[in-house]
Amino acid sequence: MTYLKISAFFAALAVLVTCSTSQGAEPLSSWNEGKTKAAIMQFVEKVTTPGSPDFVDEPERIAVFDNDGTLWSEQPVYFQLYFAVDRIKALAPQHPEWSSTEPYASILNDDLNKAMSGGMKAISEIVMASHTGMTTEAFETVVKDWIAGARHPKTKKKYTEMVYQPMLELLAYLREKGFKTYIVSGGGIEFMRPWTEEVYGIPPEQVIGSSVKTAYVVEDGKPVIKRLPEMNFIDDKEGKPVGINLHIGRRPLAAFGNSDGDLQMLEWTMAGAGPRFALYVHHTDAEREWAYDRESHIGKLDKGLDRAQADGWTVVDMKKDWKVVYP
Amino acid sequence: MTYLKISAFFAALAVLVTCSTSQGAEPLSSWNEGKTKAAIMQFVEKVTTPGSPDFVDEPERIAVFDNDGTLWSEQPVYFQLYFAVDRIKALAPQHPEWSSTEPYASILNDDLNKAMSGGMKAISEIVMASHTGMTTEAFETVVKDWIAGARHPKTKKKYTEMVYQPMLELLAYLREKGFKTYIVSGGGIEFMRPWTEEVYGIPPEQVIGSSVKTAYVVEDGKPVIKRLPEMNFIDDKEGKPVGINLHIGRRPLAAFGNSDGDLQMLEWTMAGAGPRFALYVHHTDAEREWAYDRESHIGKLDKGLDRAQADGWTVVDMKKDWKVVYP
Repeated sequence: MTYLKISAFFAALAVLVTCSTSQGAEPLSSWNEGKTKAAIMQFVEKVTTPGSPDFVDEPERIAVFDNDGTLWSEQPVYFQLYFAVDRIKALAPQHPEWSSTEPYASILNDDLNKAMSGGMKAISEIVMASHTGMTTEAFETVVKDWIAGARHPKTKKKYTEMVYQPMLELLAYLREKGFKTYIVSGGGIEFMRPWTEEVYGIPPEQVIGSSVKTAYVVEDGKPVIKRLPEMNFIDDKEGKPVGINLHIGRRPLAAFGNSDGDLQMLEWTMAGAGPRFALYVHHTDAEREWAYDRESHIGKLDKGLDRAQADGWTVVDMKKDWKVVYP
Repeated sequence: MTYLKISAFFAALAVLVTCSTSQGAEPLSSWNEGKTKAAIMQFVEKVTTPGSPDFVDEPERIAVFDNDGTLWSEQPVYFQLYFAVDRIKALAPQHPEWSSTEPYASILNDDLNKAMSGGMKAISEIVMASHTGMTTEAFETVVKDWIAGARHPKTKKKYTEMVYQPMLELLAYLREKGFKTYIVSGGGIEFMRPWTEEVYGIPPEQVIGSSVKTAYVVEDGKPVIKRLPEMNFIDDKEGKPVGINLHIGRRPLAAFGNSDGDLQMLEWTMAGAGPRFALYVHHTDAEREWAYDRESHIGKLDKGLDRAQADGWTVVDMKKDWKVVYP
């Protein structure tokens, strides 16, 4: 090889190397140094380093994330419930009977507790009245309009500003390492899809959630998909592995959650062969976010916390492990 | 710039150019020149050429393909039915009562027509007996074993050798042009997933199909997903746009089918804004494959053919347009 050729060879190599490591920024920079951050990075390194005995091919690098309480806040109630309430209020002029019918009357009087006192029947009525009876396209527009303007009653932030900066960095880090990142949430699949790509970098086809039944119909020559007032699938607890199996058809390599509703997803992930990773976000920060676990009505983490301790799963101590909470 | 640096620069450039166009081979080489091939390529060029008024961003380049009769043959009956028959025979020793119970008795006597004479009830019994009552992992193994060895009664080929070479090239061409390729089939989602990645280059998470209900249970400490004897979803006709909406959450840019069962999928695709593409494979080649359309009991193409002519959708004349049928 002549000097010229050698020089050209190294220049070419330099271009390739530059291309493949162009991200630059330190990964997980909002995570404090410590055993949580180390556990994440050690797992990712061992499954993605060529030649490692634990190396996993890229197509099998599937990471699944719960949404409420794992990627964004969920207190004092799931944000989707605020959406439902605002939607009921917006639709009220077309439903004069609501002013004297529960649970609508209490919602219109801003008494959410009283509205919820009707239990599952009341919640189901609120969800169906606010989430169905329109086309999928119309619903997408409604969600986009709401998420662009609505603000959280306590923090006054937009809901999409109440996502966790350390988790955004974790999503980006995993994707940079060849993982495909999915949301697997008890929330509505079509409530999340209109904004997850922009906020989390997760495209609609990688969002799994609860859904209502839909029907394809041609109206006045125009085909539409209508949202029907009947549940199709509840993507919570045992539903999470079922939803993962239906949508992805592979067992995840890593799973991230924050509540007992995620326990089966983490358990299913960890029961696979070879190295796997399970992580719980533990809400320990009453000052910057909320502190809750075993007794909480939203995002209860009780059995899951015991299981994580027994099986050595990673648990994020939000107060200790995160430099910042929101971006 | 010195000569050395210039030389290195061009060498680096050469590496990059080589990397980005390494496919080399002529696309769609098994397609005869003519209006069908031209229509496909013109559409793909216009939506993928930067600066084109019809340019579509890569994430929106979703292409959906029916499977039976579009990517592989489907005559004289859907191949999945042969799987069911072989499975019934394999399970028969554990079910002595089947030798005197329809539709099983007729299947065990190799009289498929008589077995089918029981209509939907008989078909449902055959599907449930052959496809359920086991874990998803066990079913995957059964499918993999079957597809590796089973052969078509007429051609004596393996079923995965009865895929269409021109369609394999079309899948590869679309992916090279930044499309994400999906299967959207009336066939079983878990019947297809074990082999679509190897045969079509389509990973499990891009396969949409019919499904049975499943349940997540922990048995002897081991979590499994069990296949239950109840239909969950039928991914045919109006079900196809519904399945696409549930799994992908975007409207496809291009849709490929061969029967009236694909009509709603093509219609839904074409009803989107901007440039869209719909193609029907018309089975016109009795010599190399099969010739059938308006009167066929399998893969009937009647309303779809009228619609394609009325709306100017592309129709493949298999006999004229394809140089070869199978690889």
